Amino acid sequence: MNEKQLAGKKAASYIQDGMIVGLGTGSTVYWTILEIARMVKEGMSITGVATSKSTEKLAQEQGIPLSSLENVSTIDLTIDGADELTEDLTLIKGGGGALLREKIIAYHSTHMIVVADSSKYVKKLGTFPLPVEITKFGYLKTLNAIKNMGCTASLRKENDSLFITDNGNYIVDCSFDEICFPTTLHDHLNQIPGVVENGLFIGYATKAIIGQENTITYVEN
Amino acid sequence: MNEKQLAGKKAASYIQDGMIVGLGTGSTVYWTILEIARMVKEGMSITGVATSKSTEKLAQEQGIPLSSLENVSTIDLTIDGADELTEDLTLIKGGGGALLREKIIAYHSTHMIVVADSSKYVKKLGTFPLPVEITKFGYLKTLNAIKNMGCTASLRKENDSLFITDNGNYIVDCSFDEICFPTTLHDHLNQIPGVVENGLFIGYATKAIIGQENTITYVEN
Repeated sequence: MNEKQLAGKKAASYIQDGMIVGLGTGSTVYWTILEIARMVKEGMSITGVATSKSTEKLAQEQGIPLSSLENVSTIDLTIDGADELTEDLTLIKGGGGALLREKIIAYHSTHMIVVADSSKYVKKLGTFPLPVEITKFGYLKTLNAIKNMGCTASLRKENDSLFITDNGNYIVDCSFDEICFPTTLHDHLNQIPGVVENGLFIGYATKAIIGQENTITYVEN
Repeated sequence: MNEKQLAGKKAASYIQDGMIVGLGTGSTVYWTILEIARMVKEGMSITGVATSKSTEKLAQEQGIPLSSLENVSTIDLTIDGADELTEDLTLIKGGGGALLREKIIAYHSTHMIVVADSSKYVKKLGTFPLPVEITKFGYLKTLNAIKNMGCTASLRKENDSLFITDNGNYIVDCSFDEICFPTTLHDHLNQIPGVVENGLFIGYATKAIIGQENTITYVEN
């Protein structure tokens, strides 16, 4: 098994019968979802809540019962990937463009396990450009306001058009030299009118399961 | 002239030739817009940026040249109303549902004048329910998260459906007994994933022009 498989599969072992489980998006959680499907086939009863349309499709194909966030009282455990994570379980997410839904689901989850390969585990955040979701109205002004926080930033494109999120917004990818104060940056970004949400996840993850060559590293808060 | 007329008309006297002017929305700014139209007819050259579709329509009918926020470098002065304002020029806005666009425009304005009748000028904010714009995804969970901040809150309705903003979101109207710490409340609300923006405008207005019976009260920061 490669690192993604190792971490993704291991995370599924934290799921218990009867749980409502937030299902993340990406190439590592993919293996979690396959493992959950196997557990469901063997008789485990769980309800999944998908963080994206692609995960919803995969879970349906794999026979995992799904519900919507509105129809569950709370989420017991969410398993999701990250584009970068540090030892204190601060994450950058949003490379796939689903950061808003992922953060809403993480916010309403009792526990969150992050799964990743070793390349995502970093000393300081910021090599991966931070995704920020912004409204269409005033987007060029909002882009400039974000740049004024000390980064180079550009609107994400898909083919020749601007990338549009599931919520009808744009994404700005922000390159800081290094993110030294993620909480301050997070709070300041969210105070700019036009910013809907940013990809810094602070205080959400309770455990990280990281594939490292043939073994697993655990990080806990 | 009634209080709205007095305040609205007076605000237009702060506009100088060549300015780019943010045009607010509501029954007091209505009088500002009529006065601006008169000044334009007499030869003043200004460019307006509308905060809503209804203001855009009114300004067009009145012959005021318009541009979009994206096509101007900066806004020299925005004139807008408020649902409540205090002596330190903290505002509650959003009764009309346009708070996000109004705040984006105010944020990119060098000056902001608030116009209001005397009923809007209060000792403490909170009698008027605070509007908060939230995403459709997860809206019931976001509503609960807002309620957990210590208010009674309900989704705004229009006829028998949920009210939808120009940006495709919902509005939650939040009744706090009294808003004692508006900055703290503002910041905490914007940190809830799913909250796009809230109706507290802090540090935006540089002057208020308030009609009081047959006279005008000025408040400046």
